[in-house]
Amino acid sequence: MATVDPKRTIRELRELRALTSDENGAQRVAWTDTWLKARAWFESKLQDLPVEYHFDAAGNRWVTLKGASEKALLLGSHLDSVPNGGWLDGPLGVLTALEVLRRFAAEFSGCPPLTIRVVDFADEEGARFGRSLLGSSAFAGTHSIAADHVRTDRDGIRMEDALRRCGVEMERFDEARIEQKNAAAYLELHIEQGPVLESMGLPLGVVLGTKGVQRHLVTFLGQEAHSGSTPMAERRDALAAAAKLALEIRPIARKHPEAVCTIGNIKTFPGIATAVVGRCEATLDQRDLDAGVLAAMLSEARQVSERFAAQEKCTVEWSPIWSIVPIPFHPILLGFCEQAILETAGVAHRLPSGPIHDAAEVSRAGIPSVMMFVQSLKGISHNKIEDTREEHIEQAVLAYDRLASKTAEWILASAAAS
Amino acid sequence: MATVDPKRTIRELRELRALTSDENGAQRVAWTDTWLKARAWFESKLQDLPVEYHFDAAGNRWVTLKGASEKALLLGSHLDSVPNGGWLDGPLGVLTALEVLRRFAAEFSGCPPLTIRVVDFADEEGARFGRSLLGSSAFAGTHSIAADHVRTDRDGIRMEDALRRCGVEMERFDEARIEQKNAAAYLELHIEQGPVLESMGLPLGVVLGTKGVQRHLVTFLGQEAHSGSTPMAERRDALAAAAKLALEIRPIARKHPEAVCTIGNIKTFPGIATAVVGRCEATLDQRDLDAGVLAAMLSEARQVSERFAAQEKCTVEWSPIWSIVPIPFHPILLGFCEQAILETAGVAHRLPSGPIHDAAEVSRAGIPSVMMFVQSLKGISHNKIEDTREEHIEQAVLAYDRLASKTAEWILASAAAS
Repeated sequence: MATVDPKRTIRELRELRALTSDENGAQRVAWTDTWLKARAWFESKLQDLPVEYHFDAAGNRWVTLKGASEKALLLGSHLDSVPNGGWLDGPLGVLTALEVLRRFAAEFSGCPPLTIRVVDFADEEGARFGRSLLGSSAFAGTHSIAADHVRTDRDGIRMEDALRRCGVEMERFDEARIEQKNAAAYLELHIEQGPVLESMGLPLGVVLGTKGVQRHLVTFLGQEAHSGSTPMAERRDALAAAAKLALEIRPIARKHPEAVCTIGNIKTFPGIATAVVGRCEATLDQRDLDAGVLAAMLSEARQVSERFAAQEKCTVEWSPIWSIVPIPFHPILLGFCEQAILETAGVAHRLPSGPIHDAAEVSRAGIPSVMMFVQSLKGISHNKIEDTREEHIEQAVLAYDRLASKTAEWILASAAAS
Repeated sequence: MATVDPKRTIRELRELRALTSDENGAQRVAWTDTWLKARAWFESKLQDLPVEYHFDAAGNRWVTLKGASEKALLLGSHLDSVPNGGWLDGPLGVLTALEVLRRFAAEFSGCPPLTIRVVDFADEEGARFGRSLLGSSAFAGTHSIAADHVRTDRDGIRMEDALRRCGVEMERFDEARIEQKNAAAYLELHIEQGPVLESMGLPLGVVLGTKGVQRHLVTFLGQEAHSGSTPMAERRDALAAAAKLALEIRPIARKHPEAVCTIGNIKTFPGIATAVVGRCEATLDQRDLDAGVLAAMLSEARQVSERFAAQEKCTVEWSPIWSIVPIPFHPILLGFCEQAILETAGVAHRLPSGPIHDAAEVSRAGIPSVMMFVQSLKGISHNKIEDTREEHIEQAVLAYDRLASKTAEWILASAAAS
């Protein structure tokens, strides 16, 4: 019986790293030459396989192993990286998907009972133009191309021109939805990018879904004043109000077991040592898998910000930066994922994903989806030191292959029943 | 009997404003053409007076009305401003000093019993090269010219070259000390630049001295981490530690009636919405008139910063930015100043100066000095809306003239007794 070869996956990941990294880490930023090189390298791996492959209208790569049924099991992730990124974020999922496709091809002599498709989504990271999940949102039909036309990179190059150079016409983005045809399920393996599995001593986790995000700019307005001549009691210190908020978001988050609230950036104006802060801008990022919890945290943060502003004789303004609803994964696939992990590692854990992933967009398209996480060392990602223990990668490939088999059986059973 | 003409002072202040301001405020930045224009305008006011005038080796302007005694009463302030500054910060003191010199000249037919000297110190603000009190520190012999040689403005122009263009050779700075000869006292009128007198409904105040300053960069080091994937309990959030410090410096300052502590600038790294802050830099500016209080506040702030760092699993580093010792003014002159204010306005208040002033440097040279403050509307300075009510300016000119008379009598009495 044909099996996956996890050591080949690790070898291929290392090949790709050698080809597309420099001393600062991975440089597979979407719509750059290094990314194109990564994609050409991936194409070279398809030559001996009985597959058809093409790019869709949004630049997503689809590799199709036709089966007896047109019903398709989608397996994938993304090859692109942030600048100075890691070797696993994205490619682990794509190359494991390829390995599982190879196993199906070998096991069924080139014609499995259902169709197997591997996808390398374009520009998951949004690193160059600030638009994450670009390819998968085009696939899902949730893209925002009308708004994205105006985007430029930091050198002033227009998104439209950068994409055209890679053969993608933004006007035709919507045509990527055609790839949804016959899609019956989507599975994605990814590194956790957080410390939870490592802290529990577990190699693998079942991802419950991607958390919803509410991201706002919170601006406190007080009164700029001379630091030497303004008595403490006379101050309207916008930083003091922001500092109270920075501390209070923590108990707000801790009321809920999986919620997080983060102030990642604070700017002070005029921002000099000799002036009381007259204006303070803070980014507040709030996440939870439950939409009700997310709404409650947002409401509570707003309320306390107004109380702190009043205490400091300041005012406060909120403006939205970005938001996304929570995307829970498919309950039946969650069960298969847990079972596959239990069979491979003996113990499984369910956890939400704080970062968003292509699987969230696929899920929004109405395609049953689930993700599997493998442990990240120190929880560090988007960094050249991003890493996962070799034995955990091997377990991940084996467990993901089991998940694919269970899902394939379920798709075939569902098709037969309908 | 000759008297000062406060309305003339207001007229002259307005003339200078019209000549050296634009729609953004005063532009009398030292070593610029607009500053030279202000100084030339001031020179035009000296033409009909029985005075000698010259620039010293540091670019300070000295106007001397010779008296029967060589003992000299020094009166002055500075004409330079910050960019987009106000009309009173500096020129009020210089033009009031000129008005009092005129009164002495008129009252004693050109030869008062002691010498009266008006000084316009060069570059009090340090706006262009970041070195405050430049001219007065040269006069006092406390300058740091060896270190200042390397200073450049934001266009990369060297301080040395900018000064040479205005006729000042930095190598000769030390020669400005010659102007200390026969100096018996120094009096300076200045706007308060703070809200204290206005909040008490008082036009004038006796300045006890200039507060000492301890200014540090406080850097908290935690761990940068993904805002979505890092549970609240696993974080080492450098911003949280800094936020605690920003709040705790307030009770530390409030233990002492006149002390102030300010965090004016906070920088977060990597400073993006999606990352827990791994490094946070804060400027801490602490001021008090009492050196012991200042030292205690610094020690207490260091201790709490270490406690907060430990609570947040961070570390903290302190590095000095700048410091100056407290400069108390002369006790006898404080009494004269209070008396002069009482005679003019009926009520006086003693307060320290949070901002530093040229009088602090003159005092460091061992010359008995005192300052008088006039109320600032809303406490706002270094801004085009900086203002003082006209009747308060008039009271200030009258009170400062009385202070000059009392000080002149004291100098003469001291000279006679010795």
